[in-house]
Amino acid sequence: MTIKDIAKACGVSVSTVSRVLNNHPDVSRSVREKVSSTVERLGYIPNNSARDLVRTRSDNIGVVVRGQDNLFFSAMVKTISREIESRGYTMVLHFIGSDDDEVMAGAILEREKKLRGLIFLGGRFDYSAETLAPVGVPFVCCTYTNCFGTLDEKDYSSVSIDDYMTAYRAVRTLIDLGHKRIAVVAPATDDRSISELRYKGYRAALEDGGLDFDPELLVETEGFFEMPKAYEGTVKLAERGTEFTAVFALSDTTALAAVKALEDHGRRVPEDCSVIAIDGLTVSEYANPTLTTMVQPVEEMGRQSVAILADMIEQRQQCCHLRLETKLRSGGSVKKI
Amino acid sequence: MTIKDIAKACGVSVSTVSRVLNNHPDVSRSVREKVSSTVERLGYIPNNSARDLVRTRSDNIGVVVRGQDNLFFSAMVKTISREIESRGYTMVLHFIGSDDDEVMAGAILEREKKLRGLIFLGGRFDYSAETLAPVGVPFVCCTYTNCFGTLDEKDYSSVSIDDYMTAYRAVRTLIDLGHKRIAVVAPATDDRSISELRYKGYRAALEDGGLDFDPELLVETEGFFEMPKAYEGTVKLAERGTEFTAVFALSDTTALAAVKALEDHGRRVPEDCSVIAIDGLTVSEYANPTLTTMVQPVEEMGRQSVAILADMIEQRQQCCHLRLETKLRSGGSVKKI
Repeated sequence: MTIKDIAKACGVSVSTVSRVLNNHPDVSRSVREKVSSTVERLGYIPNNSARDLVRTRSDNIGVVVRGQDNLFFSAMVKTISREIESRGYTMVLHFIGSDDDEVMAGAILEREKKLRGLIFLGGRFDYSAETLAPVGVPFVCCTYTNCFGTLDEKDYSSVSIDDYMTAYRAVRTLIDLGHKRIAVVAPATDDRSISELRYKGYRAALEDGGLDFDPELLVETEGFFEMPKAYEGTVKLAERGTEFTAVFALSDTTALAAVKALEDHGRRVPEDCSVIAIDGLTVSEYANPTLTTMVQPVEEMGRQSVAILADMIEQRQQCCHLRLETKLRSGGSVKKI
Repeated sequence: MTIKDIAKACGVSVSTVSRVLNNHPDVSRSVREKVSSTVERLGYIPNNSARDLVRTRSDNIGVVVRGQDNLFFSAMVKTISREIESRGYTMVLHFIGSDDDEVMAGAILEREKKLRGLIFLGGRFDYSAETLAPVGVPFVCCTYTNCFGTLDEKDYSSVSIDDYMTAYRAVRTLIDLGHKRIAVVAPATDDRSISELRYKGYRAALEDGGLDFDPELLVETEGFFEMPKAYEGTVKLAERGTEFTAVFALSDTTALAAVKALEDHGRRVPEDCSVIAIDGLTVSEYANPTLTTMVQPVEEMGRQSVAILADMIEQRQQCCHLRLETKLRSGGSVKKI
């Protein structure tokens, strides 16, 4: 019995069933009642202990990866794969789109593949116990935590950097080099996710540096760090006519797209505009100019996520929360003014 | 019973057992006899039909990915994953290093994960029936074929581009723009693999263009398209003092590293040197300058590989060999001289 069966029996989409199970507001009363009664009638139990009774043992660990063309996650998947295999488990990899619900995707995967545990690569920061109820196995939030949510810290693990502070330090680096008009290219500013935290770090650095925030310096690109959107957003910024001497991009790939957009609009990097980011990809090290960026410890994040999950599955350890350090990689995309 | 058990029982490494099973010459007679007798004693049967009798049915499809930081394969894994899942199978992803034996990795994975089929992302082009004997399930060579080997075309499937012709067309593009001194940055020239084919395409284009080959224009980087190696190789080329006006790099990422090395040595691209490659990655579209490259149909290659494999597993179709078209993406890294 999977969520797909429920959807089929009700004649609605899987995402509608997921919305009902998660008590999302945007479902009509009639659909909600139909789904709920079907769930009851067919005996679909999104409840942990009951499910375990009928579970066939597997060695599968699910890895749910958010976003298209996310090179940071691609790099991490290799480490995670190696660590999962070396511990005798099998990795079941699942990609979801920028706007998909990772929890529901993980819960479905858990049922279909009889998972022992889950690693989420990318997700929202505002889980509640109710939202996570469909996930009946130990899980690790990798690259994010639950700082906006109400989920008990004892009910999940996380491995992340301090997004707020890392963004703060990146922007502080620009301010220390004399920049006062610093633009920001961000997917969103209030999505209860990684973008919001990094955007807030930017705002805090401006404030502490005695700089006023100018809404004209903000570009919201939507999506999840896709290069085309970051390129378009930066073009808009460049065409807006607002003065700026530096750009803070929330990720390496969006920074590369921003550099491209700036150069295409006659602004050389770093001569006319500095660019700084967060990630530390190999490809941005060989970009022209080499990107100045806050490097995330991608190997260690992957390694620790699997180690913690294995400890949870094998009941050697309770949930735990690791926050890893980032480090400035000085490239050629930033200059003193 | 896995190859690991055999290795353990004999007190040798897994790769030694694999060499024995594959009749590689570099194993001593005593080790060979010890492994062979253990294989017999423990009843390890690397034989297809016998193994099927004891096989527990699974829905696993193995995907063996060669190379570190290979962004082309990262892009393809997403498509392959989606296609495998949509057909009701589970993807078991396995990364191997540049120099690892993909066949043995696949054979081990097949046993450990009870695979129904295998997709190799990257491999050698010189298989024989003996080399492939340990693989007891249908498989698809994705991104390569077996043009140097003796394996019967009816025993495997492949989805690839015409590497020789694609390289030929890339170099021909440079020649048509007036370039006569065209350097090549290649992992190898005689490895019976993708590099050899593309290198031969380069040589043929030179010959047809009436240009002599100069060994000084060749840089062998070793490895498998790693950026640091391509960077170092191009630095050597630049410091060699040999005159050249263009570089053909065998992949997008090595081309990006080559552009970086050229710029770091005072040669602007394309003003002082043109650069062309093969792949068509998103990240090279946003490089500075945009890379001119032969685009591989990455989505279709992934989709077709899974479709063909599923047909083989479900016995709807015999082996087949697809050769897909590439297309020139004109960027800003090439100019007429």
